[in-house]
Amino acid sequence: AKPLSSHMEARGKFLEFPHASAPIRALMFDLVSTVENRLDSQLSPCTLPPDVQYFENQNGNAQASLQIRSGLNSSSIDFILGSWIHCELPTGALNITSLSAYLNSSTDAPNFLIELIQSSPTSLIFILDLPPRKDLVLDPDYLHTFYESTKLDTYRQMLEKVPEVRPYFSPTLYIRCAVSPTAIMVRIETESGESARTEEIVRSYVDPVAKELLEIWLNQCACAEREVEETDKAYLEKRDSVNRSKTIEIDLASSFPRLFGQEVADRVIGEIRKVYTGT
Amino acid sequence: AKPLSSHMEARGKFLEFPHASAPIRALMFDLVSTVENRLDSQLSPCTLPPDVQYFENQNGNAQASLQIRSGLNSSSIDFILGSWIHCELPTGALNITSLSAYLNSSTDAPNFLIELIQSSPTSLIFILDLPPRKDLVLDPDYLHTFYESTKLDTYRQMLEKVPEVRPYFSPTLYIRCAVSPTAIMVRIETESGESARTEEIVRSYVDPVAKELLEIWLNQCACAEREVEETDKAYLEKRDSVNRSKTIEIDLASSFPRLFGQEVADRVIGEIRKVYTGT
Repeated sequence: AKPLSSHMEARGKFLEFPHASAPIRALMFDLVSTVENRLDSQLSPCTLPPDVQYFENQNGNAQASLQIRSGLNSSSIDFILGSWIHCELPTGALNITSLSAYLNSSTDAPNFLIELIQSSPTSLIFILDLPPRKDLVLDPDYLHTFYESTKLDTYRQMLEKVPEVRPYFSPTLYIRCAVSPTAIMVRIETESGESARTEEIVRSYVDPVAKELLEIWLNQCACAEREVEETDKAYLEKRDSVNRSKTIEIDLASSFPRLFGQEVADRVIGEIRKVYTGT
Repeated sequence: AKPLSSHMEARGKFLEFPHASAPIRALMFDLVSTVENRLDSQLSPCTLPPDVQYFENQNGNAQASLQIRSGLNSSSIDFILGSWIHCELPTGALNITSLSAYLNSSTDAPNFLIELIQSSPTSLIFILDLPPRKDLVLDPDYLHTFYESTKLDTYRQMLEKVPEVRPYFSPTLYIRCAVSPTAIMVRIETESGESARTEEIVRSYVDPVAKELLEIWLNQCACAEREVEETDKAYLEKRDSVNRSKTIEIDLASSFPRLFGQEVADRVIGEIRKVYTGT
């Protein structure tokens, strides 16, 4: 495939979510649009090199798209990262779509994260959370402000009641630590041949819950005025930095070389690391 | 009922676990004996007043027993707390048995916690964990040392495979935050009339897993040599202190006045607070 010629073309390719199921595609497009509409004046355009905004492996059976928009200096947004990955594996197609939003140390409010991992038409892992940026054991007020008074657990409980939905325990312990106590981490498993039911669950439950949580994040985290003292700022920077390094290691460093080859993986991870570490 | 006349009698009453099912009674007795045998030289006898070691409500339909043994100055054990509570409720009998072990700030190793909440012969909540004493997001090495390299998650996975076992989400978010990513928090629910199956699950799964975890805690936490710097010590003291205050608030302050009346509740909570805060 020929490389994409422009940022505009790469952005278009990202927003297509070409391999996701129809309801996931619609949801992801809506979430990205909502974030960008609300925060547009605070965000720079994506400046990743075109061959990082879209890339494939040599065989052409693995493709991915990546968009990162950094926040302006005056904003509390550090950056917004959207991605999709599509791989033809011997076991079937793997499709991952994700959107995450990271705040900077001018605020201690939680980040936003949604990830949908579809490993077959009838098996979907759904992760949705406002990951905390402080140690909740040490800071019950923070827990109260962002998780109790916002009644975030009601959304998790709603999903839990759907018969095809089971709690999902990530095999990576660090991921379990990094999410909030109200995180939605579930596996949606329908009978073989019932991909229509999976899509129905996405439309009826995943979609509205994801949009509600994004609204809460936009109103009460991204746009909240939080006073952060200097010592807290240093703590947040340290904690964010460890968290991001571990996230790169877990999400990318282990799987990307396998999926895309070492050269592509190094190029892409290098660019992501620059954004994560602010260098 | 007449008050217990001696510490010895109170201790005997505690070790009876008179209202627990046979396999839970056997397990709790074994766990307490194991801890006491291994740590005996480091522990003072229980010095709680007799009317805190055993107490009832006015109607006599709620009873409880409490034993706390503090660690000697030279020990890294802060204290060991065992308890059982029995209440006749309109919905049936509620039986709670627990054993927890708290380390002091000479070490940063995790604590130990087991709690069994039986709300009917066919419904049992089982909580087993080595609750961390540091923020695992900020300290991946700590996560690795105590949770990854010890393969603690294999025990959770073992339980998860039993068909009657479901993940349990505590309604109290703080409790979800305070446990480790490998915590066993499950509800064991059998068909009505099948209390024998509940007992079988306790014997075959709960019992061996609890004993394994206690061994790991004794060998790798209670008896581990950990170097703790002065700044870390201050951090541990702060975090332990917040954690303990919240634990009292959640476990006791809300339910004890209701179950035992305000006077008994104040007396018991006052004594527990003394131990928790070291005053």
